[in-house]
Amino acid sequence: MSKYAFGVDIGGTTVKLGLFDKDGCVLDKWEIPTVKDNEGAAILPDVAESIFSKMKEKNITPEDIVGVGVGAPGAIDNDGLLVGGAVNLGWGVFNISKVLNGYLNMPVKAANDANVAAFGEMWQGGGKGYSNMVAVTLGTGVGGGIIVEGNILTGATGAGGEIGHIHIEDEETECCGCKKKGCLEQYASATGIVRLANRRLAKDDAPSMLRGGEITAKVVWDAVKAGDSVAIEIAEQFGDYLGKGLAAVAAVVNPEIFVIGGGVSKAGDILLEYIEPAFQKYVFTPCGKAKFALATLGNDAGIYGAAGLVLR
Amino acid sequence: MSKYAFGVDIGGTTVKLGLFDKDGCVLDKWEIPTVKDNEGAAILPDVAESIFSKMKEKNITPEDIVGVGVGAPGAIDNDGLLVGGAVNLGWGVFNISKVLNGYLNMPVKAANDANVAAFGEMWQGGGKGYSNMVAVTLGTGVGGGIIVEGNILTGATGAGGEIGHIHIEDEETECCGCKKKGCLEQYASATGIVRLANRRLAKDDAPSMLRGGEITAKVVWDAVKAGDSVAIEIAEQFGDYLGKGLAAVAAVVNPEIFVIGGGVSKAGDILLEYIEPAFQKYVFTPCGKAKFALATLGNDAGIYGAAGLVLR
Repeated sequence: MSKYAFGVDIGGTTVKLGLFDKDGCVLDKWEIPTVKDNEGAAILPDVAESIFSKMKEKNITPEDIVGVGVGAPGAIDNDGLLVGGAVNLGWGVFNISKVLNGYLNMPVKAANDANVAAFGEMWQGGGKGYSNMVAVTLGTGVGGGIIVEGNILTGATGAGGEIGHIHIEDEETECCGCKKKGCLEQYASATGIVRLANRRLAKDDAPSMLRGGEITAKVVWDAVKAGDSVAIEIAEQFGDYLGKGLAAVAAVVNPEIFVIGGGVSKAGDILLEYIEPAFQKYVFTPCGKAKFALATLGNDAGIYGAAGLVLR
Repeated sequence: MSKYAFGVDIGGTTVKLGLFDKDGCVLDKWEIPTVKDNEGAAILPDVAESIFSKMKEKNITPEDIVGVGVGAPGAIDNDGLLVGGAVNLGWGVFNISKVLNGYLNMPVKAANDANVAAFGEMWQGGGKGYSNMVAVTLGTGVGGGIIVEGNILTGATGAGGEIGHIHIEDEETECCGCKKKGCLEQYASATGIVRLANRRLAKDDAPSMLRGGEITAKVVWDAVKAGDSVAIEIAEQFGDYLGKGLAAVAAVVNPEIFVIGGGVSKAGDILLEYIEPAFQKYVFTPCGKAKFALATLGNDAGIYGAAGLVLR
């Protein structure tokens, strides 16, 4: 009887792998380097070899395996097709599920890495017990993953849940990475918080522990926790932008819960104290019962979600 | 063999009914009054009686019926529960599917009327051939219905697709019907267009054919078609708000197509000339391939969608 699944999270530097039992407990996890030479031709063969060698080590036969789930960057449709390639792996357009299945001869399911991580948080993380969830990743950028009735919302071109690019500010003069102006990502990401901080500090001479040193999102949140009033203003601005953006998301998909992850979320529960009041200020009341929680799986969300693709 | 389905669209004044064949062609359609006395207790018995009498008229037996689909106002969950009642029918909280099934002894599926109309437009209307669609209803308010991979996105509390209440304008001083300020509905509905027009006309004395007479959305669009420059400004403002709102929706659900319906859409294709450029200005590029079309089923979208709930 099939008892195990592998979860594979393909990143630009390393590939994370996990061996899971049918209940979603991780039995082993490890990493291999992502070899991007030669248009990333070795990545999937390396994954297959690593899976076979783990099976040998653990005395697991192919019959024991339910399947292999894969998260990878880029838009991936429901059949596993990498619709527009993945620049940072060197990959062009091809069907990830089919190719990896060709190496492994086991069931393979592939999906976008951010969506897979969202799925992982729903299955075994901060969103456990919910089936209508929005995962919000506050990192270098702002990513999202939307789960509707237990399934990933992929979208027509695999760009579902790209909530970082909701237009939120008409007055913005600088461009977002996406070339438009005023995207949520420009204010609510780690780099966005630094921009908000620099703008606030340049506005006047109000005393603040943020002055003089290097500004990072962590430095700002540490100052908020220390009661620095300028940092608190910045946090309020951050919260207002993010609350407004998530209120728009709530009016569209009406989730039960928002799960906040990514590097910025390491600031902890204090983050939610700035997001939730702003969310309530803007949200359509019937959608306002949505809960907020922090992500709990950290960098393992990808392998959990990938395994969940085949186990759940 | 089951050959037919009924589609029922319960409104505040009349109940629309349709008899459909398995291919989704309407064979007959008619209306009965909505009797709201006594907390709307007669509505579902009246529907059942009307269906039985049509079956007798057409010599249709219960074995010929695939099922009965129902659209009704209010949030309705996937089991048919009217989660918060329906004030304008006098209805409290109860399970529409189960109660109507009790009268009919046939399979019944119920869903929110706006979502059902969206489903109808996807199945047999302006969105035919697509499975990831957003229906936008520009009437007294702005409603929405979201179809993801062929299914209605209901949301956690049945408020999925309430896109009229996306916050879109920070500077608004008047309240929306929902009590918040700056909702899309305040600018893109029929009444919203009148507000935009009155504000624009009050701003200066620029000559316009809109001056002096009664302002309605139709009057404004007729003036746009006649080349009135003030009316064109109003249409641009309308388009900018709606394009911005739909760009936010696109970043969340990444649809293949937006289908625009409701009374305002009677203005015709000229509407899209003002929406699409604004949409492209704000949209995250990977979501920018979404098409725009006008709804084609008009007031019949509800009965089509309701029948589609059981036929599709």
